[in-house]
Amino acid sequence: MDKIQEIIKKIEELDQGLMTKAQARLDNLTKPQGSLGRLEEIAKLIVGISRNENPSIGKKVIFTFASDHGVTQEKVSAFPKEVTAQMVYNFLSGGAGINVLAGCVGAKVIVADMGIALDLKPHPKLIINKINYGTKNMAAGPAMTREEAVRSVEAGIEIFLDVFREGVDIVGTGEMGIGNTTASSAIAACLLEEPVEKMTGRGTGIDDKAFSNKVGVIEKALSINKPNPKDPLDVLSKVGGFEIGGLAGVILGAASKRIPVVIDGFISGVAALIAYRLEPKVKNYMIAAHCSVEKGHRIILDYLGLKPLLDLELRLGEGTGAALGMGIIEASIKIFTQMATFQKASVSEKIEE
Amino acid sequence: MDKIQEIIKKIEELDQGLMTKAQARLDNLTKPQGSLGRLEEIAKLIVGISRNENPSIGKKVIFTFASDHGVTQEKVSAFPKEVTAQMVYNFLSGGAGINVLAGCVGAKVIVADMGIALDLKPHPKLIINKINYGTKNMAAGPAMTREEAVRSVEAGIEIFLDVFREGVDIVGTGEMGIGNTTASSAIAACLLEEPVEKMTGRGTGIDDKAFSNKVGVIEKALSINKPNPKDPLDVLSKVGGFEIGGLAGVILGAASKRIPVVIDGFISGVAALIAYRLEPKVKNYMIAAHCSVEKGHRIILDYLGLKPLLDLELRLGEGTGAALGMGIIEASIKIFTQMATFQKASVSEKIEE
Repeated sequence: MDKIQEIIKKIEELDQGLMTKAQARLDNLTKPQGSLGRLEEIAKLIVGISRNENPSIGKKVIFTFASDHGVTQEKVSAFPKEVTAQMVYNFLSGGAGINVLAGCVGAKVIVADMGIALDLKPHPKLIINKINYGTKNMAAGPAMTREEAVRSVEAGIEIFLDVFREGVDIVGTGEMGIGNTTASSAIAACLLEEPVEKMTGRGTGIDDKAFSNKVGVIEKALSINKPNPKDPLDVLSKVGGFEIGGLAGVILGAASKRIPVVIDGFISGVAALIAYRLEPKVKNYMIAAHCSVEKGHRIILDYLGLKPLLDLELRLGEGTGAALGMGIIEASIKIFTQMATFQKASVSEKIEE
Repeated sequence: MDKIQEIIKKIEELDQGLMTKAQARLDNLTKPQGSLGRLEEIAKLIVGISRNENPSIGKKVIFTFASDHGVTQEKVSAFPKEVTAQMVYNFLSGGAGINVLAGCVGAKVIVADMGIALDLKPHPKLIINKINYGTKNMAAGPAMTREEAVRSVEAGIEIFLDVFREGVDIVGTGEMGIGNTTASSAIAACLLEEPVEKMTGRGTGIDDKAFSNKVGVIEKALSINKPNPKDPLDVLSKVGGFEIGGLAGVILGAASKRIPVVIDGFISGVAALIAYRLEPKVKNYMIAAHCSVEKGHRIILDYLGLKPLLDLELRLGEGTGAALGMGIIEASIKIFTQMATFQKASVSEKIEE
């Protein structure tokens, strides 16, 4: 817990002075003021986050954390739990959605085993930081101990800091874990004190009957474990997942080093919510890549005051939306740093009334 | 007019058989079915357009057509009319928004003078296809003759075909012309038989008083010229612009060669509407890049049944939204062509109920 507190203390406010300067520069580029909309807004935010008047996001890293969930015993997913490990091998061999989309924007994918239920074959690209062999079934008791919850967040911080030492300009969050929309809906319903049904979606694609079961399982887990909505680590331990805690750690770590964090979909949004409840200032470092089909995501984004860049009806996770979002963010940075000013291009400015 | 009819006759239906095959392939990639949302939809569409089961959009071209508008005499824009030519020089020297964003996705920008009010200095990258030295003031009479309207569309077809001969996989539309939101609102209000105020926005950024004037000018132009809403070339000639006609030509030309067309903002949307009214089948070849702040754009997209990929509050034009859209489309093609299947990656499929 000391490590988490230590990182939180380093999270500062954005640099408003530099953001004002960035706005003046944007207003002097050869376009009507504000006509590049959200691209301008994002460029200004990146300046404020990075404290760099000529930012670059050349070095992009997406953290795709994987873990298993004991709650899959309750038949909450359309896919068998073995798929978590199988998909990690797919990430490592480059065949998954996140590999393709990260490739499109030149982002590196860091794959970490935060708690898969079996021992994976070693691979040079795989980080093993197993908190445990999957969580326990939250419908029968706590998913993990409080100590494990703390360790999952700390592990995320450490994995981020290792990457930071090698150099990184922007990070994205992503995950894989059969059953993790169930854990995420439970966390979100508890932290936001919303009805379970409102925060629960179809995950990988379950039918009406399985959906009713999923809602019932989450309600049971919350009723048995009684997580304290004012204590995000208690909620994480009672109904969470190791990859979710890990991503909360990445988000806190990135903010502490003034690195912008691109939040992917629903599960990443839940990790962002946990990070926010640990330290509200972390929100200033977040950029919401997209709005997921998973319905609780919109509610979390609204609560955090984050406006998603994209709405492409994605619901895959892995960091796929974060990768696409990085492409838009890179465009915004290039607009800011590469466009000509009115003076330089000898273009007449707006007629004053 | 013969050239337009000849091109229109070549526009075919999409290949539904190949699209069905594309859907089957998408469903077998290592992700829950449909979980990449609009990326999957776009990949399937590109297969249907291109009749290619392994499509690529490596060769991207954005057509940025520029022209002047006599209606600027009525003080409808926040910028002086000289800006049209000045911005063309900015495009040619690489300092404009479109240069930066086209660069982000590796698209070539083709700049054409379709009717700027003065003779530009020659430049190796500039296509001169001047229909006239700007349109006439539509608030005092027709913007152009019917023959000029036909020639502007034909010129767009020819410019596209020249590019096509060199090889192109996808095209985008873009424009520059001080006063062209005024012409576009007039065309849209007439063709869709909607009130002028509903189809008119703030363009480059005018205040309330100038906005009222703009609406009044458009109403006057429609009342004086009485364009026939059933005859898109009549509407183009009475209240249009040469760049708008040119873009309608590009769209028709691209569809005739099975090349997908990425439609940029409001003015491009109006060109798409004209192309659609000339030949409804052309709609199948269009992808709406984004929804502009310019309020008539959403109405046109809804009318055409096009769902924009992005909503980034852009209102610059030039093809900037089309460039960003191409980045998303390229991602969708790479998902389709590069992701592993369940079999190849040894990942278990969905549990059958």
